[in-house]
Amino acid sequence: MLKIGIIGVGRIGKVHAESITKYVPNAIVKAIADPYMTEETEKWAKSMGIEIAYKDYKKILEDPEIEGVLVCSSTDTHSQISIEAAKAGKNIFCEKPIDHDLDRIYEVLDVVKETGVKFQVGFNRRFDHNFKAVKEAVVNGKVGEPHIIKITSRDPEAPPIEYVKVSGGMFLDMTIHDFDMARFLSGSEVEEVYAAGNVLIDPKIGEAGDIDTAIITLKFTNGCLGVIDNSRQAAYGYDQRAEVFGSKGVVSVSNDTNSSAVISTSEGVTGEKPLYFFLERYMQSFADEIKQFVEAIVNDTEVPVNAMDGLKPILIGMAAKKSIEEGRPVKISEVEK
Amino acid sequence: MLKIGIIGVGRIGKVHAESITKYVPNAIVKAIADPYMTEETEKWAKSMGIEIAYKDYKKILEDPEIEGVLVCSSTDTHSQISIEAAKAGKNIFCEKPIDHDLDRIYEVLDVVKETGVKFQVGFNRRFDHNFKAVKEAVVNGKVGEPHIIKITSRDPEAPPIEYVKVSGGMFLDMTIHDFDMARFLSGSEVEEVYAAGNVLIDPKIGEAGDIDTAIITLKFTNGCLGVIDNSRQAAYGYDQRAEVFGSKGVVSVSNDTNSSAVISTSEGVTGEKPLYFFLERYMQSFADEIKQFVEAIVNDTEVPVNAMDGLKPILIGMAAKKSIEEGRPVKISEVEK
Amino acid sequence: MLKIGIIGVGRIGKVHAESITKYVPNAIVKAIADPYMTEETEKWAKSMGIEIAYKDYKKILEDPEIEGVLVCSSTDTHSQISIEAAKAGKNIFCEKPIDHDLDRIYEVLDVVKETGVKFQVGFNRRFDHNFKAVKEAVVNGKVGEPHIIKITSRDPEAPPIEYVKVSGGMFLDMTIHDFDMARFLSGSEVEEVYAAGNVLIDPKIGEAGDIDTAIITLKFTNGCLGVIDNSRQAAYGYDQRAEVFGSKGVVSVSNDTNSSAVISTSEGVTGEKPLYFFLERYMQSFADEIKQFVEAIVNDTEVPVNAMDGLKPILIGMAAKKSIEEGRPVKISEVEK
Amino acid sequence: MLKIGIIGVGRIGKVHAESITKYVPNAIVKAIADPYMTEETEKWAKSMGIEIAYKDYKKILEDPEIEGVLVCSSTDTHSQISIEAAKAGKNIFCEKPIDHDLDRIYEVLDVVKETGVKFQVGFNRRFDHNFKAVKEAVVNGKVGEPHIIKITSRDPEAPPIEYVKVSGGMFLDMTIHDFDMARFLSGSEVEEVYAAGNVLIDPKIGEAGDIDTAIITLKFTNGCLGVIDNSRQAAYGYDQRAEVFGSKGVVSVSNDTNSSAVISTSEGVTGEKPLYFFLERYMQSFADEIKQFVEAIVNDTEVPVNAMDGLKPILIGMAAKKSIEEGRPVKISEVEK
Repeated sequence: MLKIGIIGVGRIGKVHAESITKYVPNAIVKAIADPYMTEETEKWAKSMGIEIAYKDYKKILEDPEIEGVLVCSSTDTHSQISIEAAKAGKNIFCEKPIDHDLDRIYEVLDVVKETGVKFQVGFNRRFDHNFKAVKEAVVNGKVGEPHIIKITSRDPEAPPIEYVKVSGGMFLDMTIHDFDMARFLSGSEVEEVYAAGNVLIDPKIGEAGDIDTAIITLKFTNGCLGVIDNSRQAAYGYDQRAEVFGSKGVVSVSNDTNSSAVISTSEGVTGEKPLYFFLERYMQSFADEIKQFVEAIVNDTEVPVNAMDGLKPILIGMAAKKSIEEGRPVKISEVEK
Repeated sequence: MLKIGIIGVGRIGKVHAESITKYVPNAIVKAIADPYMTEETEKWAKSMGIEIAYKDYKKILEDPEIEGVLVCSSTDTHSQISIEAAKAGKNIFCEKPIDHDLDRIYEVLDVVKETGVKFQVGFNRRFDHNFKAVKEAVVNGKVGEPHIIKITSRDPEAPPIEYVKVSGGMFLDMTIHDFDMARFLSGSEVEEVYAAGNVLIDPKIGEAGDIDTAIITLKFTNGCLGVIDNSRQAAYGYDQRAEVFGSKGVVSVSNDTNSSAVISTSEGVTGEKPLYFFLERYMQSFADEIKQFVEAIVNDTEVPVNAMDGLKPILIGMAAKKSIEEGRPVKISEVEK
Repeated sequence: MLKIGIIGVGRIGKVHAESITKYVPNAIVKAIADPYMTEETEKWAKSMGIEIAYKDYKKILEDPEIEGVLVCSSTDTHSQISIEAAKAGKNIFCEKPIDHDLDRIYEVLDVVKETGVKFQVGFNRRFDHNFKAVKEAVVNGKVGEPHIIKITSRDPEAPPIEYVKVSGGMFLDMTIHDFDMARFLSGSEVEEVYAAGNVLIDPKIGEAGDIDTAIITLKFTNGCLGVIDNSRQAAYGYDQRAEVFGSKGVVSVSNDTNSSAVISTSEGVTGEKPLYFFLERYMQSFADEIKQFVEAIVNDTEVPVNAMDGLKPILIGMAAKKSIEEGRPVKISEVEK
Repeated sequence: MLKIGIIGVGRIGKVHAESITKYVPNAIVKAIADPYMTEETEKWAKSMGIEIAYKDYKKILEDPEIEGVLVCSSTDTHSQISIEAAKAGKNIFCEKPIDHDLDRIYEVLDVVKETGVKFQVGFNRRFDHNFKAVKEAVVNGKVGEPHIIKITSRDPEAPPIEYVKVSGGMFLDMTIHDFDMARFLSGSEVEEVYAAGNVLIDPKIGEAGDIDTAIITLKFTNGCLGVIDNSRQAAYGYDQRAEVFGSKGVVSVSNDTNSSAVISTSEGVTGEKPLYFFLERYMQSFADEIKQFVEAIVNDTEVPVNAMDGLKPILIGMAAKKSIEEGRPVKISEVEK
């Protein structure tokens, strides 16, 4: 029974705790830590069978029984806690992004390398049933050599302006998942990025220095081209689709719905909207990424999404940001250090 | 250039005339005949390049240049005109049904046999792109041996009560197409029929001695089972679907729409309704049945839907009617003479 | 924390135990009982946190802490154990069918009435996301008054012949779920049944006195008509669809798949097959039925599928059997006692 | 009866002639002209009821009875013939592109303005049932303000290399239709273009100085963003889709197929491939554009696709070409004269 500590028990930390309890039979959450530990959270922890609730995450790092930690704290603490956890010999599952500062990310990569701990990044969508099916079609050669990768990724509603201000910008906050998906589906690295963006949803987002609508073109080292279209607000729900077009054909996935019910009346033929909430849409993928993290520790195998997979999308995001600012395509090599 | 005469130029007679003009390059309509020949119809005929417009159909039968006649007159005259046309040596395309009286149908069959003219019945749906695709899947063995034939056939609105009264009943007026389709798709003959029906759309239909909603179970000689569901009024349009389930799989077709547009909003995900009007839905099939009739004459080959194909669905319809009346399954042999 | 005992821990008993552990936060499985208790099962029970594993189910009935029992034993013991459990004051969740013998079912109903315990029958499909969506559309008046209920229910493969022999026949073993669904979706009672059946999959099924393919027509007391088509073997997987056609429109649901991936190549446009295994297809519904059983106990409310709901489909199944045997429609009143 | 002359009777000229005969009741083709007039073409003309077949198109321009000419000759003659036709007072339907030389196009625009003849450009896709449905949804406000326009346009196979060499490049030969569609659907003008392209289908295309795969980002004056993805070879057929995402929702159209048949077997669930041939896919739109051209003449109304609509996509194509060459976004104003 692998013992796990969760650092940061906001929404996503709780999701992981529940996933472990329900779906990961060979692991238990021994302790959680959160500087804002509330009575409610302690109660929730008890109901989940979690023994210990700390305020100070260092207590988790000090517990020799705990072999894996989940870093689910606020983004600005990811790198610091990861470095400490690695030095304490803990295997790490770190939510995305590792950091917004490249130097800090490289530092994490170095420490992870030195200490030899496992380090997985929370790009959960790779574990989603739909995107996995696309990946499998590509890997099995069903569509031949990939020529065009298309990703549609639109949120059901824009985040609060206060969040937008500290989010690092849409590319690092939201599109980062799509950059990861582009790498995952193409099986290649992004070489150059061109981003066109605009503020079409809410002028306050523009005032906060961000955009809410974008089309990003990617050039991959293998010659493949990619395009991502983003919106912070799709009136019909959470729109998450992908398509890989290749020399032998195309594979595409559409949105999940609550049921397959179609109602035909004099008004039209109506089906259900896409699932609205990302936790509902991606629930199973959150469970599966943790399951595989635990398996990688237990069997001492490679984690499925490693530290480099955490770095690359950030570089792409930085290039996209620079592209918008300078109105030109930007090479990844320009933002790398 | 095959010369054709059309007897009866109501809606369907006009449709055939236009089909020949547009789509059948090796035939022309030389003459039309209709006892209620209006000025408007004569004008229409002129605009179509049709030389002659008679009141008396016998004039068409007397014209030695005319090799094929289309019997599109009122149902009660189909058999009489067909017999006369056969005796005049004309090849005949007869709208369904040949007659509501079995003796008259047998008489037509006899005369057709004696005279050796070609006789095709207007079961146009066999030429529809969707139903043809189902048939091809069955014939090519894609679904293996047929086990279950399912046909959904629902009209967009009930006909006028005056029409209902003289229609011969829903089974002979509407379901007759589905009985033909069942034979076509199964590649087998119906042996026994059980029909359950009710008046759920309009009580006046019941007062007229008819039903408006039905489920009809068919047993085929090859062991296959079939089911047809009918309604005189589908609020969303003309619902015409079929499915053949067999030992290796299933083939099914859905409705045609005006476009593939899907609109997703906060209200739902909405596509277009099925095409509403049977002439729009089946336009291409009306053209193709006439094209093949002409080809059968020109090349002296078998017509694709022959006199027996005209008889059989009427027998099934009569058995269905008897089944409703007597509340029991009825064998085709019980209604045959 | 409601304490539950599970009597019979074959496949479905285990499914319920796992559902309770994962998804029913206010209940725990205190004990299981099975005459064929294996070491493996005991191990499994331990891993699930189940304290006690009996061979004798009476031990569960004697435990005053246990408020609800799940009767998941072999079909021939359902009624006997239910009667004993009711007399012991336990609330009962009983797998379908209650019994194949009507007298025994009536006895259960009587005892349940006398003792006042809650009694829920395991018609899990009512809790399925798709069928629930159909029901909701009907209840909310989206399709108006129901006119035609259509249910397609085809298994991915026929059961072993040994099972077929003791199954009570296809109607009581397999179609019973569809009879329940027909009642559920129509909101009405079945009055008369006509069944057409055949042996098209495996002659051994016929030798065992059963059929493997059927079309069953239902007449409901509210005038609505229904049709179920069944096959013991659909080459493409588990085919579970339904459609309710009414005065205002139609609602229909299709099959669930593992992903929405569609691959288009020179060979065609291919999507995934329906989920093959009923436990995978209906997993969430199994969890939800138990959740609602627990809630009914905890809140002292009506169970969602009661004892009469257990009886009715059996009556319909008996009428269907009689219909096949006698080649005529059979009224439910003919098989009721 | 409007009399029409067709100049150039290659594939598309013949299509237009047949459309007029079948679907445009108030027009006839009086004469055709083609420098390579073959016996076969003359025979075809006779069978279509076309009286006169010239080698010299000037004969058509001299015929005072002819009110409309269709310029369907080779691309390099479009502008010259259009200018002569305008000066001869003929209303002109000109196949796209008007010319590859901007000066020549401006000359055509000038002469058209001076002479006051009607001038329609052959962007037939605007008349396609699917794209019209998208446009209507946008115009009717169903999706709110357009934010993102997405067009997928992939040919079933690459043209011969000899054609590629004289085609003016993929953007002016193939994407030009998509540039027109982008303007049509957005209701706005393109301001800036960024194109990423590659040679992934056939190295010979690269040797001929062209590309075969591209992603083109468009910025519109109204702030909307657009993206087109192109491939010269989609293994599964002709892939023609569009999507408009706006403030209230999204409208999208998929490909047309020959039938709605879906076959489910143990291998998978398979539907038909998109229609392969552009003439089959867009047949009805070719008829409708000519019908509207004739109506514009007869009723003296505006043509639905005017000379400016012919110019704009060429400017966008030139900007796209420049963007590829210089590796940067290019403003339309940079290529305009």
